[in-house]
Amino acid sequence: MTFGIDDLPVRDELRGKSPYGAPQLDVPVRLNTNENPYPLPEALVERIAERVREAARDLNRYPDRDAVELRAGLARYLTDTSGHPLDVSNVWAANGSNEVIQQLLQTFGGPGRTAIGFEPSYSMHGLIARGTGTGWISGPRHEDFTIDVPAAARAIAEHRPDVVFVTTPNNPTGTAVPAETVLALYEAAQAAKPSMVVVDEAYIEFSHGASLLPLLDGRPNLVVSRTMSKAFGAAGLRLGYLAAHPAVVDAVQLVRLPYHLSAVTQATALAALEHTDTLLKYVEQLKTERDRLVAELRAVGYEVTESDANFVQFGRFADSHETWRKILDRGVLVRDNGVPGWLRVTAGTPEENDAFLDAVREVKKEQST
Amino acid sequence: MTFGIDDLPVRDELRGKSPYGAPQLDVPVRLNTNENPYPLPEALVERIAERVREAARDLNRYPDRDAVELRAGLARYLTDTSGHPLDVSNVWAANGSNEVIQQLLQTFGGPGRTAIGFEPSYSMHGLIARGTGTGWISGPRHEDFTIDVPAAARAIAEHRPDVVFVTTPNNPTGTAVPAETVLALYEAAQAAKPSMVVVDEAYIEFSHGASLLPLLDGRPNLVVSRTMSKAFGAAGLRLGYLAAHPAVVDAVQLVRLPYHLSAVTQATALAALEHTDTLLKYVEQLKTERDRLVAELRAVGYEVTESDANFVQFGRFADSHETWRKILDRGVLVRDNGVPGWLRVTAGTPEENDAFLDAVREVKKEQST
Repeated sequence: MTFGIDDLPVRDELRGKSPYGAPQLDVPVRLNTNENPYPLPEALVERIAERVREAARDLNRYPDRDAVELRAGLARYLTDTSGHPLDVSNVWAANGSNEVIQQLLQTFGGPGRTAIGFEPSYSMHGLIARGTGTGWISGPRHEDFTIDVPAAARAIAEHRPDVVFVTTPNNPTGTAVPAETVLALYEAAQAAKPSMVVVDEAYIEFSHGASLLPLLDGRPNLVVSRTMSKAFGAAGLRLGYLAAHPAVVDAVQLVRLPYHLSAVTQATALAALEHTDTLLKYVEQLKTERDRLVAELRAVGYEVTESDANFVQFGRFADSHETWRKILDRGVLVRDNGVPGWLRVTAGTPEENDAFLDAVREVKKEQST
Repeated sequence: MTFGIDDLPVRDELRGKSPYGAPQLDVPVRLNTNENPYPLPEALVERIAERVREAARDLNRYPDRDAVELRAGLARYLTDTSGHPLDVSNVWAANGSNEVIQQLLQTFGGPGRTAIGFEPSYSMHGLIARGTGTGWISGPRHEDFTIDVPAAARAIAEHRPDVVFVTTPNNPTGTAVPAETVLALYEAAQAAKPSMVVVDEAYIEFSHGASLLPLLDGRPNLVVSRTMSKAFGAAGLRLGYLAAHPAVVDAVQLVRLPYHLSAVTQATALAALEHTDTLLKYVEQLKTERDRLVAELRAVGYEVTESDANFVQFGRFADSHETWRKILDRGVLVRDNGVPGWLRVTAGTPEENDAFLDAVREVKKEQST
């Protein structure tokens, strides 16, 4: 018998658990983690090296604890792309939107408090809730994966959660959430008790519609979270951020680990912001490819959930894991998110998407005969 | 009335609190945060730019979630410098030792559990305990700041904590903790209930004595935490790590945020590890300067706590904050850690230390007249 996790005095709720994370398999076409398939342009790579070299000359010193230059840059980006004016006092940044969410739950959730999400949705919301001792409530959706507003409002009234998560576009379904839905949930949450509503816009740049940032106006208990992992093509950078009333930005500083954001992360993110225009052109290409995937998957005979993200949910399968495996056997890795009957594919390059479509056409043919 | 933190539904224990952190003042000589005063050598700066450029070419992909190459490099460094053989399965890395400690407390502490530290010590242990819902117990020290072993063992027997923190060399006092003390506390902790003992060796490279890594042998509930902030001169990098039984490394992966460590952080840390020999030469210079500070401060007539770190605690002052201010007025920023009667100064360059010594000689003269 080897000495293992369960021989240590770990917390009871961790016993028998395994770490979160998609399988990292070495296959020709990886369309499973919603990464942007386009490497950063070489000019940006050089600019990153340049800014990091500069930061490295001062690396013996702690980084700017408040990341002021970076937050100002992110605020400018949000203002420019949404038309909703924001400044450094409205923006906070951390190591990936996961850390942003963790800080929000440490501030507004935690032991004796609860959070609700409408599932299926981004599963880290519930996992980070568990990690911060926050009770987790799974709220309802319609069968077409849109949020069932009356049922959601009833769940909020019944459970009186401290934090409400709304993901738009939703992951893994791709479903956009209209502003009216968020407003209805915000009203329901405030009526139940003063509680925070976190709108997770990780994929918003790929949406047919607009960001919900303008809703922040006059709603201090609303937070919009974002990431540079997707639209900025920088999953490896781990840079998440939020926009909210300045009081929210002040509040998360009570729980953030001091100097949480390294000088090299800040330098790299600042370099990426200088190249926003180029990166947003890749986003346009990916939107076109996403729409092509939706159309082609339907042409093959699959059901497809409407998508506003850089990925597409398709089905239905009697055994989605078996279909996942059949696609993998053809060299294409997609994601089985555990939504019964459905799989998720990330929009890749045109060539990657062709390889995926060839694979699913074959699988469809095999499964039909 | 402006809308502020307390108008938000923050957790009760956060009300009225302010964020942790030393004042970041713009003064000529900053000896307040135990930073290494030596910038990284230019060859290392270039190597960082090179490795980050390489990492940036793949930045659209998520980083290695398990940071295998980096952990192997850190294990090699620990093995080479301690003579105690460790490999990748024994080592875990995160964004600063603060995040390492947070992950340990999420795994082994948390709601309904407690942790103990022997104070004064690194105040983040208690603050991160609070942030993770872990109860905090302040254990005793002798008046000379060594750990009072019988009293500490009694406190452990009485409170039966789940996590025991031992900082060696201790911050802010500089006090080294002998192996026998750690062994006694480990025995006491296991006798009370199976609990984890975390030895925080953030400053161990500056010690007159050896690392306690060899104690890991046969003690799966022992953890040694380290950082690249001090000896590696890379406070801006935010790279902390731990060494322990492989089961501990597996266990923290249950709570770590997925992809918590960015590709640029991993690349930069790997570059720094290539230059270990050069960086450890700076450590030798700083040890000499630290010993000079101790001798000179005593010559001036101050009391000085024995130091094994890159900083020195000196006193005693009827009003340490007033003395802090008088030193600051002379252009030198030291740290008032809130230990009544004492201040802490970081060993800087010879020139910075001269400036500090000139300042305190003046202050001493003024206070004696």
